[in-house]
Amino acid sequence: MDFATAIAQTCAGLEQHPEKGAATFRADHTLTGLTEVDAEIRTHRVTIDEPPSLGGADAGPNPVELVLAGLGGCQAIALRVWAAKLDIAFDHVRVRVEGDLDVRGFFGVDESVRPGFSAIRVRAEISGPEPHDRYDELYKAVEAHCPVQDIVTNGVPVTSELTVTDA
Amino acid sequence: MDFATAIAQTCAGLEQHPEKGAATFRADHTLTGLTEVDAEIRTHRVTIDEPPSLGGADAGPNPVELVLAGLGGCQAIALRVWAAKLDIAFDHVRVRVEGDLDVRGFFGVDESVRPGFSAIRVRAEISGPEPHDRYDELYKAVEAHCPVQDIVTNGVPVTSELTVTDA
Repeated sequence: MDFATAIAQTCAGLEQHPEKGAATFRADHTLTGLTEVDAEIRTHRVTIDEPPSLGGADAGPNPVELVLAGLGGCQAIALRVWAAKLDIAFDHVRVRVEGDLDVRGFFGVDESVRPGFSAIRVRAEISGPEPHDRYDELYKAVEAHCPVQDIVTNGVPVTSELTVTDA
Repeated sequence: MDFATAIAQTCAGLEQHPEKGAATFRADHTLTGLTEVDAEIRTHRVTIDEPPSLGGADAGPNPVELVLAGLGGCQAIALRVWAAKLDIAFDHVRVRVEGDLDVRGFFGVDESVRPGFSAIRVRAEISGPEPHDRYDELYKAVEAHCPVQDIVTNGVPVTSELTVTDA
């Protein structure tokens, strides 16, 4: 079965059984070094760390870089899925993401500075045989349906709690 | 130099030269497979993919899982940094993160369903020799200064643009 048919079947299935759309994703983290973190995501592992300029040993990307990677990866995958849905052919996709952040917020040096990004810029590039306006149509659909773009743009209710354990 | 001294020096430097707090982080992405994406983050690479249930080959965590990993990693590192700032000793840290998402939003099956997470839950665990109220004090500081928690909770202005290229 080709990808477009698989996506069409998935969508038809979700229309018939809307409750099957509900999913819960998880990641579990252990602080294994000074600032090194081992993230377990199903069968996958990602090492997270800070660069030396932020006190770490640079064993992996840092947390805010992972958010940018999530956003760029999400747009790239959404381009694939929505190109299949809209029957738009393409050859190559690249997505470059940048985020500006003032580390004074994280370190509490200035409490008026937000800890997170103040701005994120995404530049997607696509090549292929279709007229440009079809790619513009595709990218509008991607921007409207990309989960990470929604999360990062609109925010999510986060509940957090700390447990003090014995071990 | 121990970690607490290094963090104190970083903070003192940022107080004297606030302009040195400004940083730009980047990630570049290439769609290399059906839904497989190669993310380049400085010298690091992360493979992103979707599980078979979402049309992929599961070569890596998916984009929304990376956001959860960013959040858990960020809290773990913030616990380390703020424990040093507040002179709080601890032995072990774990952070478990879950996010609920209805995939009908991504697939455009129901345009009233948001594509991103509807809720995120974080459960951090810490062990160590201090009285519990010191860990509560520590976690309050972490929640207030964790960059990814700020990003995911409050959102960020995102600008995005598509370029149609020849190659």
